[in-house]
Amino acid sequence: MERIHKLSEWMKEEDIQFSFLTSTESVFYLSQFYSDPHERLLGVAVFQDAEPFLICPAMEKEDAKKTGWNHEIIGYSDIENPWELVKHAVFKRIAKINRIAIEKEHLNVERFEILSELFSNAQFISAEEKLRTLRLIKDEKELGAIREACSLADYAIEVGCSEIKEGKTELDVLAAIEFALKKKGITAMAFSTMVLTGANGASPHGNPGLTKIKKGDLVLFDLGVVVNGYCSDITRTVAFGDINDKQKEIYDTVLKAQLAAISASKPGIKCSEVDFAARSTIEKAGYGDYFPHRLGHGLGISVHEYPSLTETNDLLLEKGMVYTIEPGIYVPGVAGVRIEDDVVVTENGVEILTKFPKELQIIS
Amino acid sequence: MERIHKLSEWMKEEDIQFSFLTSTESVFYLSQFYSDPHERLLGVAVFQDAEPFLICPAMEKEDAKKTGWNHEIIGYSDIENPWELVKHAVFKRIAKINRIAIEKEHLNVERFEILSELFSNAQFISAEEKLRTLRLIKDEKELGAIREACSLADYAIEVGCSEIKEGKTELDVLAAIEFALKKKGITAMAFSTMVLTGANGASPHGNPGLTKIKKGDLVLFDLGVVVNGYCSDITRTVAFGDINDKQKEIYDTVLKAQLAAISASKPGIKCSEVDFAARSTIEKAGYGDYFPHRLGHGLGISVHEYPSLTETNDLLLEKGMVYTIEPGIYVPGVAGVRIEDDVVVTENGVEILTKFPKELQIIS
Repeated sequence: MERIHKLSEWMKEEDIQFSFLTSTESVFYLSQFYSDPHERLLGVAVFQDAEPFLICPAMEKEDAKKTGWNHEIIGYSDIENPWELVKHAVFKRIAKINRIAIEKEHLNVERFEILSELFSNAQFISAEEKLRTLRLIKDEKELGAIREACSLADYAIEVGCSEIKEGKTELDVLAAIEFALKKKGITAMAFSTMVLTGANGASPHGNPGLTKIKKGDLVLFDLGVVVNGYCSDITRTVAFGDINDKQKEIYDTVLKAQLAAISASKPGIKCSEVDFAARSTIEKAGYGDYFPHRLGHGLGISVHEYPSLTETNDLLLEKGMVYTIEPGIYVPGVAGVRIEDDVVVTENGVEILTKFPKELQIIS
Repeated sequence: MERIHKLSEWMKEEDIQFSFLTSTESVFYLSQFYSDPHERLLGVAVFQDAEPFLICPAMEKEDAKKTGWNHEIIGYSDIENPWELVKHAVFKRIAKINRIAIEKEHLNVERFEILSELFSNAQFISAEEKLRTLRLIKDEKELGAIREACSLADYAIEVGCSEIKEGKTELDVLAAIEFALKKKGITAMAFSTMVLTGANGASPHGNPGLTKIKKGDLVLFDLGVVVNGYCSDITRTVAFGDINDKQKEIYDTVLKAQLAAISASKPGIKCSEVDFAARSTIEKAGYGDYFPHRLGHGLGISVHEYPSLTETNDLLLEKGMVYTIEPGIYVPGVAGVRIEDDVVVTENGVEILTKFPKELQIIS
């Protein structure tokens, strides 16, 4: 319960007597219990010194126990008021509460009003920045899940490439990818799978549809899977038949930028320096205006978490951080190319977790 | 803009000067613009008499216009503060605000704190009950989308049945269903597709996995698709090869209960009476303890909306209401059977929107 302990230490510094975390992600991070109870209450309560507790629907209590949480678990039936149980459990542990930490981006107003009434006069603090910081460094178990998710993402790209044929639509290829993953037991994608071809690929956030793939097109895949609660996120752009010199030049530029950002990544380097390594490569090649997004984002329980690799983030890389490196160039009417890997920071560089080849794949 | 008008009328009755609705569902219902902008702000502002407005990310403004919203649309770039734009647009329209309606189950605390600061001293009211009531009666356009979604749900069951073979897993069949739907251009399921066999089917909320289907098993499908923003939801239970007499008896009882609930449905009847028609049939057959959930739920933009068909809901059915009728019997170790149709209330009964056969299908 290292994670709970770190949160408690922060609470002491911030004079917070009670933290109540209610998002699926935070409950999973703190308790290892993964559950989405929809409109029902799920939460982990943390204190400075007192024993933490977990509250969940009664029918999930057995599952929660199995995850290894060895503190109190409060199960409630549909006819009980879970908030009264929370209040009781809290006041059994501590007498006076001035400051309560919650997830302000997650908790809704209805629940906030209930909490405000149960703990009147308390001040509410956001726990989110602290939780994001705690989640920055991945331990070995987390890395194991991410590695497996990355390996399945590689497999998905492989399936996608083998499905590219004249006349197939984006959705045909997408369906084949997810079909193959489901057969391997993968039931959750990290986000909506993207298969974009031709002009659609030149939009950084297009939607796959009934557009047919044709010779001379680039096909862009962007996808990720969830394994044991952890996400992967890979992008590859491949050519269907011969592509023209402009398209090749764009591909080579993106790949060069992506490799430059990988080389720049190591402990002690700022996130912004990694972004710069890729961005300056693209700018020098004259495509600066066509790379409109940040270089990458952290990856873990959420598909977007810390660190954020932007032009301005001065956060220093540390061993154990996991993030994406995904430069792209989108020239309307010409080509859309993005190449994305997931990496983990090591002692003196990064290990690349997604391994599908990055040399331009030409599918005939 | 009949819907906006009805909301304004309610605001006059309730002395609410400003409603700010920010969920994807409510924005779609009020403006016909369907968008999930994730962490970015999207909202429809409604007043008692002044012109409503829609606020969205600048890059979505063109899409919003195309939906037919003929009032102001405020687009904001990533470097603008959308809340300041909201404040300005509101005070341009009205001078004094005492009461503001929001979606308390949707809005998060972070946004609530911003709103509370922008409109200090205002009281916040929940608009959700009113919106749910407005959404109860479906118009012809809504029914058109639901009909199409139901017809695709029928098709999905057909595909599922044709995929049942010795040795196939639940996930194999599930993957084949979603594959077939994607090829028809369906990119969103209404909820996680369920394919459950054998013992898994006897749990009302199991998860499909790598269990293999074998002769003598029942296979339960529960799925729905989204068409033009509207959901369908169908359940069928079929037999793979010969099933035993107990399983048949359970199937027949569920079917009888389902048909009784359909017969009981017509304008002026209470939701609870419809539930009773099915529940009493199951109780009389001696399976009352094995039907642990409500009979059904409303269906539309959300897969669960009003009306709720429970033992205690006294709401009267009206023409245009759409809901599911889905009794089930789950006897651990013996059988799990659920049969679910979507229906719309007509002048003197209901029209059944899902049409896949309900006589026990025996797949050999």
